[in-house]
Amino acid sequence: RISWISDIIVVVSPENIETMKTIVEKYGHKRVTVVEGGITRHRSIFNGLKVFAENEFSSHLLQKPEVVIIHDAVRPFVEEDVVSKVVLAAKEHGAAGAIRPLVSTVIASAPDGCLDHSLERARYRASEMPQAFLFDIIYKAYQQCTDYDLDYGTECLHLALKYCKTNAKLVEGTADLWKVTYKRDLYAAESIIKDNLSQQVCVITNVKETLAQVAFLLPESLKSQIKVEAISVSLSKNDSHLQNIISGQCYNFVCVNDKRCATQETQELVDMLEKSNIPLLCPVVLILVHLDISENNSFNIGMEDLTTVKKFARETKKKNILVYGLLIQYK
Amino acid sequence: RISWISDIIVVVSPENIETMKTIVEKYGHKRVTVVEGGITRHRSIFNGLKVFAENEFSSHLLQKPEVVIIHDAVRPFVEEDVVSKVVLAAKEHGAAGAIRPLVSTVIASAPDGCLDHSLERARYRASEMPQAFLFDIIYKAYQQCTDYDLDYGTECLHLALKYCKTNAKLVEGTADLWKVTYKRDLYAAESIIKDNLSQQVCVITNVKETLAQVAFLLPESLKSQIKVEAISVSLSKNDSHLQNIISGQCYNFVCVNDKRCATQETQELVDMLEKSNIPLLCPVVLILVHLDISENNSFNIGMEDLTTVKKFARETKKKNILVYGLLIQYK
Repeated sequence: RISWISDIIVVVSPENIETMKTIVEKYGHKRVTVVEGGITRHRSIFNGLKVFAENEFSSHLLQKPEVVIIHDAVRPFVEEDVVSKVVLAAKEHGAAGAIRPLVSTVIASAPDGCLDHSLERARYRASEMPQAFLFDIIYKAYQQCTDYDLDYGTECLHLALKYCKTNAKLVEGTADLWKVTYKRDLYAAESIIKDNLSQQVCVITNVKETLAQVAFLLPESLKSQIKVEAISVSLSKNDSHLQNIISGQCYNFVCVNDKRCATQETQELVDMLEKSNIPLLCPVVLILVHLDISENNSFNIGMEDLTTVKKFARETKKKNILVYGLLIQYK
Repeated sequence: RISWISDIIVVVSPENIETMKTIVEKYGHKRVTVVEGGITRHRSIFNGLKVFAENEFSSHLLQKPEVVIIHDAVRPFVEEDVVSKVVLAAKEHGAAGAIRPLVSTVIASAPDGCLDHSLERARYRASEMPQAFLFDIIYKAYQQCTDYDLDYGTECLHLALKYCKTNAKLVEGTADLWKVTYKRDLYAAESIIKDNLSQQVCVITNVKETLAQVAFLLPESLKSQIKVEAISVSLSKNDSHLQNIISGQCYNFVCVNDKRCATQETQELVDMLEKSNIPLLCPVVLILVHLDISENNSFNIGMEDLTTVKKFARETKKKNILVYGLLIQYK
């Protein structure tokens, strides 16, 4: 995602190495080296750093970087902007890390389980990730630190200060750097992802008058809530506008048509989506709207049509494309 | 919710007093006194305490309690168990508060924006709510504290320690005591509420053979995921089993029947729900399943039936009861 990062070292526990390698391959991630973690946080980070310095830890030694960024997998929403700020600060100061205001007051407890003293909230900050370091500084710090540090420590900035006398520059981070820790954080993360995916919808229809009208009204009523890309042309592989929308990672499509079963046309869209690899990352939602513009006064849907759509939906679901059918009687 | 609490003082900002009074009345909350807040946290809490001690702040002075609990509205998921523990600890120690482990390391920054020092995470705790105090201790602390404390302080336990030499007992709280602070916390809170509401579903059907069979199969397939209360009797106001389920705060109902439009029967359920006041707190979901057991090979739904259900759903929605229709062809 960030082009100026030359290598990405993913440190994982021994039992998850194969799974991680499969994920890296499946999603075509580049520049990634998977490394075995240790039994504590600091031991894992140290293992990751060794890839740049010690032959025994990697089949081919990676080129030693000037600056190294340390990040947690539990903070998936980090933006390029904060990574860049932390790196620039590390180049200047030797070390830098993102911080956030404290949400709760921090207190120290006495051995009897009672309050010893409370800290003045405004004078302290929560230390978050990403952090960045001149490679030589953080590597030297890890080489010199004690087993106690490696087993019980939690803070890389502390090691740089203690062993290299480097006072890290603190960079104000954004709220989405929070650590996904509890079940409620998974709920929140899921909602944030869904929110992002539902920002854009593409409406596709063919050119007949009634359809064009609906394709105009739908975006009008939706656009106060989400970004609508409307295309009033029939589906075609050679349509570069549609190709652009798909490669721009649109996850929601509404296809309006007046045919009973437009599975043939829809199949073309499914093919395009599949080729784009987008449905691999997140499910794509495809709503097939069948507009009934006849004067008939009752819905008369044959079982055959329903079966066709259901079969089609079942097939595309395997490709992570969710097809829904919608019948609208329009007069 | 907690019977042994004698009075509840809700402190709100002046502009929200009327709204809060409306809410208290609408939901029939008892034992509640609404009090005007101050411009800081400590000033608001002090105003709340004065209701028990100073005539001018309330039309009728409430009886001074032995123990007072202080809680935040931003921690809506507090359980009776932790409240009870904090109160008992306060009776013994004079003050007590819930704590949680720190999620991130806490650091102190120097005036130049660089790291001054980091705290050893294991030795500190986040101070959360609820907290409880012997009334005389916390009230004396507020009476003695300075304007600086009232304007910039954040921690009641600190005031009890500073002005009454009372070292609060720290009580380990649960993860759901977290402070709803950011947008992501609202997402999390919403998901937790939805999760709780969807733990139970009540299936209602009348006695015909086919229906009874479905009413048996549905709970069977659902019960690995949620608690299913199945009732194989027709709806009746005098059914005490159904009454018990409703008063046990069930929010989900599936009504299976073989009539085109069972709105009359459903109306009885809607009446019962309305009388129970449950839909006032959260929307109730009512799924009307119409089982088509005819040999006919196509769905032939008249517009009239659809219109009836739609009208019915629109009416119940005003009462916070969401009605959905489902047509199943069953052979």
